Amino acid sequence: MEQDKIPQATAKRLPLYYRFLNNLNNQGKKRVSSKELSEAVKVDSATIRRDFSYFGALGKKGYGYNVEYLLGFFRKTLDQDELTEVALIGTGNLGTAFLHYNFLKNNSTKIVMAFDADSDKVGSDIGSVPVHHIDELEAKMGDISVAILTVPSDEAQSITNRLADFGISGILNFTPARITVPSSIRVHHIDLAVELQSLVYFLKHYPLSK
Amino acid sequence: MEQDKIPQATAKRLPLYYRFLNNLNNQGKKRVSSKELSEAVKVDSATIRRDFSYFGALGKKGYGYNVEYLLGFFRKTLDQDELTEVALIGTGNLGTAFLHYNFLKNNSTKIVMAFDADSDKVGSDIGSVPVHHIDELEAKMGDISVAILTVPSDEAQSITNRLADFGISGILNFTPARITVPSSIRVHHIDLAVELQSLVYFLKHYPLSK
Repeated sequence: MEQDKIPQATAKRLPLYYRFLNNLNNQGKKRVSSKELSEAVKVDSATIRRDFSYFGALGKKGYGYNVEYLLGFFRKTLDQDELTEVALIGTGNLGTAFLHYNFLKNNSTKIVMAFDADSDKVGSDIGSVPVHHIDELEAKMGDISVAILTVPSDEAQSITNRLADFGISGILNFTPARITVPSSIRVHHIDLAVELQSLVYFLKHYPLSK
Repeated sequence: MEQDKIPQATAKRLPLYYRFLNNLNNQGKKRVSSKELSEAVKVDSATIRRDFSYFGALGKKGYGYNVEYLLGFFRKTLDQDELTEVALIGTGNLGTAFLHYNFLKNNSTKIVMAFDADSDKVGSDIGSVPVHHIDELEAKMGDISVAILTVPSDEAQSITNRLADFGISGILNFTPARITVPSSIRVHHIDLAVELQSLVYFLKHYPLSK
């Protein structure tokens, strides 16, 4: 699919828009105003209108947006019809939470295998996903190009090195460790402690009016 | 503490800077260049220099930054010396992962209590944090003003309403549900599926050069 580059901030909001529109469509709703969208996805309506303008003029004054049309548009944009298979490394509490999470409900990413070193887990299924031994990482990955990293911090870099040697394209790093990768690999890092600290910082320094 | 407002994007990076500098200091390092910082926290050095400039000119050409000075500065800025107590609601896998996570290691947020409806968990400790029954939420919270939400999606809004009535200031929402709160409450939302979908989207549309 050819499309012009859109701003990264806009790109980040696309999955949110998609999810909400999908829910609306499931409820049989035919149209939605930018105000309704705004309240549902917690993005101000001016930003929504600007975001949507990058895809061409999709809204009509006094009518709002056609849900089915928008949904078809986003589905193509987010490549919803093309399944992306993902591997998860580390089936501790956080990894297990991911495996039980129903990713397929609203999108087309699917965790198809997990890896762990714990022999009690290897060979079992968690959330219908088979758990392989971490020693089999390279043997089992096949053409999977995205991995979720939920291993203990002190193992994050060595596993990352193996993923890099294997030829991974993207890593969703949920460990507190900042990992080093070749520039060809995209890493998104979500650190639970930093997220909490950041919220506390905003609360202290950017209080909202009562 | 009085300070001028800094851009939100800069504010979001402060906890990352703080954590890395704290590690350096623990290793006995006295100074750090913006290049080293850049490699460690994965933020380009021009951005680091711009971020730091909001706090006054802290770096010296050819010398870099004084670790102890920076650390003292950030500690004050992040209010590291003031403990913020946090409650966690929902002790499933994700909640349990949070409770085992050592938040106190590098910062001053601490989960001091957890809530769940599961009678097998109520009365026990997870990661040294006591688990109370969800019915006791209002009775136990005291002056806690920040909550982490790791409940099932379909309970997110009703628990949020209780937290809002109680007078909470901030919620870290880790459920897939978009919650509605009064404008005086700050919500940071981390949706595991959206994070994964966003990474996949970036991989497809913003490929990095090999």
